[in-house]
Amino acid sequence: MKIIVTGAAGFIATNLLPRLLTEGHEVVGVDNFFLGRREYVDRFLPHQKFQFHEFDLLDRERVISLFEAVRPDCVWHIAANSDISFGTTYTDFDLKGGTHVTYNVLEAMRLSGTSQIIFSSSGAIYGEPRVLPTPEDYGPLFPISLYAASKIACEGLITAFAHNYDIRAWIFRFGNIVGPFPTHGVIYDFIQKLRRDPTRLQILGDGTQAKPYVHVEDCLDGMMFGYRSARERINCYNLAVGDQTSVNEIARWIIEAMGLDASGVRIDRGNEPRGWRGDVAQVRLDTRRMEALGWKAKMSSGEAVKRAIRETVAQLA
Amino acid sequence: MKIIVTGAAGFIATNLLPRLLTEGHEVVGVDNFFLGRREYVDRFLPHQKFQFHEFDLLDRERVISLFEAVRPDCVWHIAANSDISFGTTYTDFDLKGGTHVTYNVLEAMRLSGTSQIIFSSSGAIYGEPRVLPTPEDYGPLFPISLYAASKIACEGLITAFAHNYDIRAWIFRFGNIVGPFPTHGVIYDFIQKLRRDPTRLQILGDGTQAKPYVHVEDCLDGMMFGYRSARERINCYNLAVGDQTSVNEIARWIIEAMGLDASGVRIDRGNEPRGWRGDVAQVRLDTRRMEALGWKAKMSSGEAVKRAIRETVAQLA
Repeated sequence: MKIIVTGAAGFIATNLLPRLLTEGHEVVGVDNFFLGRREYVDRFLPHQKFQFHEFDLLDRERVISLFEAVRPDCVWHIAANSDISFGTTYTDFDLKGGTHVTYNVLEAMRLSGTSQIIFSSSGAIYGEPRVLPTPEDYGPLFPISLYAASKIACEGLITAFAHNYDIRAWIFRFGNIVGPFPTHGVIYDFIQKLRRDPTRLQILGDGTQAKPYVHVEDCLDGMMFGYRSARERINCYNLAVGDQTSVNEIARWIIEAMGLDASGVRIDRGNEPRGWRGDVAQVRLDTRRMEALGWKAKMSSGEAVKRAIRETVAQLA
Repeated sequence: MKIIVTGAAGFIATNLLPRLLTEGHEVVGVDNFFLGRREYVDRFLPHQKFQFHEFDLLDRERVISLFEAVRPDCVWHIAANSDISFGTTYTDFDLKGGTHVTYNVLEAMRLSGTSQIIFSSSGAIYGEPRVLPTPEDYGPLFPISLYAASKIACEGLITAFAHNYDIRAWIFRFGNIVGPFPTHGVIYDFIQKLRRDPTRLQILGDGTQAKPYVHVEDCLDGMMFGYRSARERINCYNLAVGDQTSVNEIARWIIEAMGLDASGVRIDRGNEPRGWRGDVAQVRLDTRRMEALGWKAKMSSGEAVKRAIRETVAQLA
């Protein structure tokens, strides 16, 4: 298969690429290195079946040219602003980097006859739902961050393009994905903060916010299983685990894993149950649909977080 | 109150303006005359409390300047591409004229401290739902037109802005709105076609597609009632009627209303149950939420269509 991967230098893709290359696919990666890291993609440049292009997916002409040149069998469209709080400061950030970019990818698919898209959506689209764990058919969708608003917009664009232009789509609504080669996120942030100053740790919010953390290896297992097993035109699944981990637990485990004496670390917490205004404090995603398809994450939320902490501490050390 | 009305020269707004002006509000209208008509807005120019600005809402700087100059109490954001099939040909049409424009309006609200938005969404966002009549909490939203995808994107942007920047929103998901001063739509199209050639009428699709038609006077009653009565941060309601009217019925009633002999009109139908690819053939919207608030349309779908036919035949004659 010929596969285009967007956001190829980002956290998810850098863990995905070895799998696709091992399976023997020809992979063409794109990234603008805004969140993605040059060193993450450099690892794959020697591979004969890997090609990389550095440009911004907002450049529609380049996206279309690339798709017309490659004529891929499918695209893993993973590029996005994954720093949710950023979108509150720069209000058009997700509109451009999420919605607009996704439109460009879909338009390029249409013009090049590319018929399959695998898309990383988010459980954030459910906003602050009345139903926990939240199933895929939950409504209405009232997102509280511009990031989530953009993911909803992308899902709508994907399903409308799918209907009108014979495209099939696999949409995965992620819990919080953790693992090696992070570019951002709570584990990465806490470790960086404690490396700079091992005597104190500032937590955004009161630390009680709790979410289902999924290890990136489980996440990729799930996406690949879903892609192979679900054969509707639109295949939309929560990709999560049943339990939750709180930010306070993560802080405690990181202090332990870094070999710090907990009594010597002053933890400053906020008063709010949310980390920031668009943060969904309590996330639980219903995973029964994915289980009915035949897949379940191997690691619990706690196991995923602990493993990701070990991996990240080792990488940043 | 100071009120900005977007899409001020369009079908809905031209019926709304007399109400707002009669209630004594200061109204500032904006339109780019893409679908809107100069003669529809010209009627209000002599009014002392009406101001009109001709520009494209894609021009973010002008939108922001206007909001900062007017500092409105609320905005009726009605501007949109309402010609759904158009978006299939020009795939970025709804992204620009719907999603982008709505972002610009919200950003202007944020910067000018405007705290209330009334938004015309659409029952099209439900796609081809498994549940009829479709309630507001239906999910997942898999739209089949880029128009509907854009309405979903707009709703998401509105709710995210509402959450982050102290804005309150009234979102009305319309059935098919009909009435005087149309700019497009099945009634308008059929009458125009029959005026050009009274011996034949071409119907897109097989004519069995059926939807709830709402008269614009009912629609505006409902919006105003909802705006005054619903006091959540996000107020989201289907605005429709319980019954449906088929395109075949509309064709028959128009031929009658125009005084044509039905046996002398050859009707050419398509084979598809849909009028075009992104057309939702069977629409029924659950109106119980609006009824629980205390409002119900006065006219049934059939009554609304018949009255709109009379009004449109009289205006185009």
